[in-house]
Amino acid sequence: MTTDPVALAAELIRCPSVTPNEGGALALLEARLGAAGFTCIRVDRNGIPNLFARWGAKGARTFGFNGHTDVVPVGDTAAWSHDPFGGEVIDGILWGRGATDMKTGVAAFAAAAIDFVAETPPDGAIVLTITGDEEGAGRDGTRAILDWMQAEGEEMSVCLVGEPTCPERLGDMMKIGRRGSMTFFIEASGVQGHAAYPHRAKNPLHALVTLLARMTAEPLDHGTDHFEPSTVQITTIDCGNPANNVIPAKARATINIRFNDAHTSAILESWGKALARAVTEETGVAFALTTEVSGESFITPPGPFTDLVARAVEAETGVKPELSTSGGTSDARFIKAHCPVLEFGLVGKTMHQVDERVETDQITRLKAVYARILRDWFA
Amino acid sequence: MTTDPVALAAELIRCPSVTPNEGGALALLEARLGAAGFTCIRVDRNGIPNLFARWGAKGARTFGFNGHTDVVPVGDTAAWSHDPFGGEVIDGILWGRGATDMKTGVAAFAAAAIDFVAETPPDGAIVLTITGDEEGAGRDGTRAILDWMQAEGEEMSVCLVGEPTCPERLGDMMKIGRRGSMTFFIEASGVQGHAAYPHRAKNPLHALVTLLARMTAEPLDHGTDHFEPSTVQITTIDCGNPANNVIPAKARATINIRFNDAHTSAILESWGKALARAVTEETGVAFALTTEVSGESFITPPGPFTDLVARAVEAETGVKPELSTSGGTSDARFIKAHCPVLEFGLVGKTMHQVDERVETDQITRLKAVYARILRDWFA
Repeated sequence: MTTDPVALAAELIRCPSVTPNEGGALALLEARLGAAGFTCIRVDRNGIPNLFARWGAKGARTFGFNGHTDVVPVGDTAAWSHDPFGGEVIDGILWGRGATDMKTGVAAFAAAAIDFVAETPPDGAIVLTITGDEEGAGRDGTRAILDWMQAEGEEMSVCLVGEPTCPERLGDMMKIGRRGSMTFFIEASGVQGHAAYPHRAKNPLHALVTLLARMTAEPLDHGTDHFEPSTVQITTIDCGNPANNVIPAKARATINIRFNDAHTSAILESWGKALARAVTEETGVAFALTTEVSGESFITPPGPFTDLVARAVEAETGVKPELSTSGGTSDARFIKAHCPVLEFGLVGKTMHQVDERVETDQITRLKAVYARILRDWFA
Repeated sequence: MTTDPVALAAELIRCPSVTPNEGGALALLEARLGAAGFTCIRVDRNGIPNLFARWGAKGARTFGFNGHTDVVPVGDTAAWSHDPFGGEVIDGILWGRGATDMKTGVAAFAAAAIDFVAETPPDGAIVLTITGDEEGAGRDGTRAILDWMQAEGEEMSVCLVGEPTCPERLGDMMKIGRRGSMTFFIEASGVQGHAAYPHRAKNPLHALVTLLARMTAEPLDHGTDHFEPSTVQITTIDCGNPANNVIPAKARATINIRFNDAHTSAILESWGKALARAVTEETGVAFALTTEVSGESFITPPGPFTDLVARAVEAETGVKPELSTSGGTSDARFIKAHCPVLEFGLVGKTMHQVDERVETDQITRLKAVYARILRDWFA
C-alpha cells in the first residue's frame, strides 16, 4: 500500500501551525516517518519546533529534502470559501492554508521517501529536515537543524527544497540559486536654515537626491550566466519637514538591493559608502549608512544534479523546467553552505492568499517527481 | 516743539497689539496725526485694523510711508529682562516687542511727518498707510488699504516702507526690491510592487529623485543687475513606506524657489511641469504638480528716488547704504503695483526675539533720515 500524499497534506492542513505554533504538524510527521523506519529527532530551539528524520546510516551517501510546516496567518477567516484549517477536498481541489506553501510539498516528499525506502531500500540514506519557522524570523528554524547536524556529524550529499517554484504550470521552473538581498539605511545630516538663504545652510535633501541618483543611475550589472541583472530600489525617503521656507537638518532613505553572483554584500557596502563619501566631499552633508544583509547570492551551477532533477520533472510533468535564480529568499540560502541545493515544488499562485488551494492531482504528480528523483539519484 | 519719536515708540510698545489685535496702537496714531492736521480714516477689513492718514490735498504730488503696528507674540514672557509691553527706556535703550519690528519705524516716520508739515508745509501731500496685520496672513492689511485707496482715487507718487533693513549698522542697507517666492508641491504616482521584481512595478521614488535632481542640477541663473541668483531648495521628501521589500505607490516632495527678475512664477511653473512631463515619458510615473506663489519679484531700479533716499541715509548716518534685493517678503510686494517703493529702517537683529530692543539714539537718527528724505523730495 502506498502513502497518499493528498490525505497526508489534508491532515497537515488540519494542524493549525501558524508560525511559531507547532500545531501538531511535526508530531504527525514524526509518527508517520518513525513508523516507516526513520530515526526522528526534534531539534527545537528557542521555542521553534523542528524535525530531523533519517532513514539509513549516518555517514552514508545521503539525499536530503527540506521544507516547513508553519504557515502564514489566514487573514480574514470570513473571506475564505472553506475552513482554512479544514483540509477539505472538494471536486478534486484541496483547500486550506498551506495547500501550496507548503504542507503539500512536505506531504509529497515524505510520502515519496516513505514508499521509496519500503519498496526499494537504497544503498544510502535519506534525510528530511522540516522546520516550524520558515515564514517568520527564521533564526531558529532550518538554521537550527543545520547547526545541530553539523555538531552531530550529520550530513546531506545534496538537498532538494520542496517550496512552490512554478509560475504557471507544474514543471515549468526549478530554482538553482537565489540572488542576495541587502538593505541600506541612509541618514543625511546637513545644517538647517532658511530656504531664502541656502548658502548659510547645507541641505541634506539635495545631497541625498544626488547620492540616490548616483546609486540608481546605472545598472549594477547586466546579469550573469545564471542570474538576472542585480536591482537597486529606493523603498522610502522621509524628512517630515512641514515648513516650506525651512531647509531641514536631516533626511532618511532606504534602498533595497537584490544582487547576483557578480557581487557580495561586503563589496556593495563599500560601493555605497564610497559614493556617500564623494557626495559628502562635494556638499559637506554627512551620511550615516548602515546595512542589513538578508543573504548572499548563491547557485548550484548546472551539472549532474540539476540535470537529474530537470529530467525527472520533465518525465513526470511533460514540461522542461527553466533553471531559474529568480524570486525572494528561501531556506536554501542556509543549506547552500552545507551541500548543493535545488528547489522544486508546486505552482505557488495562491500562496499567502485567501482561499489558498491546489488540485489534488498536482500533489500526486509532485510525489511522483520526488519519487523519480530518489530512484534516479540512488540508481 | 518737535515730536519725540522715542516717547511715541514707547507709547506704541505699551499697546499690546499682537496680530491681529489693534491694542490701542492705531487709535494712538490716529489721535496724534489727527491733531497735526492729517485726515485719518480707519480702513478695517475682516477684523483687521488699518489706518490711512493724509496731510495735504488728495491728487497732489504725494510722498507715502508704510508700516505696521502689529507685533509677533512675545514667546516666553519669563525669559524677557523687561516687560515686553512696558516700553521702558533704561540707559539709552528702549525695550519691548516692536522695538525694531517696527513700532519704532512707525514712530520715526510719523514724528518726522508731523514736524515737517508743521514747520515747512510742503507743496504736495503726505500719506501714511499703517496696518495691523503684516506679521500674520496679510490678506486684509496693507492690501486692504491699497484696495480702498484705489477705489477712492487716493494715490502715492512714491512710498517708503519703514521696516528694519540694516544688517549691522544703521544706514548700511536699503531695499530696492525683493525676490519672488513660490512653492511646488509634487506628488509622484507609480505602481506598487515587490522590491525583487522592479520590472513589474513603477517606482515613484526613482522618478521623483530624477525630477528633483534635474530641478536642482543647474542654477536657474547667475544673478541679474540688482538681484542675487535665484535659488531652488527641496524642503521635504516623504513616502512613509515601512517595508524594505516593497516598492511604494506614491511619494511627495516640496520645493521652494526664490526667484529674481529673470523669471516669473508662471514661467517657472511651466519649467517645472515640462521637466515632470519629460520624466513621466521616460518612466511612466505620473506627477501632480501644484504651486503656491507668495509673490513675484519686483524692483525699483536705481534712479532719482533711490539716489535721493541713499543720499539722505548717508548724510544722517555717515554710512553709504547698499541697494539690496535680499531677504524675505514685506508689504512692499503689494505697494509696488501702485508706485515706486523702497524700504529703509533700523538694524533688525533682535526682531522676533526675546529682549527685542534698540538704542534710543537710533530712533532719533532714523527720524532725522525720514525728515531729510521729506525735505529733499519736496524741495
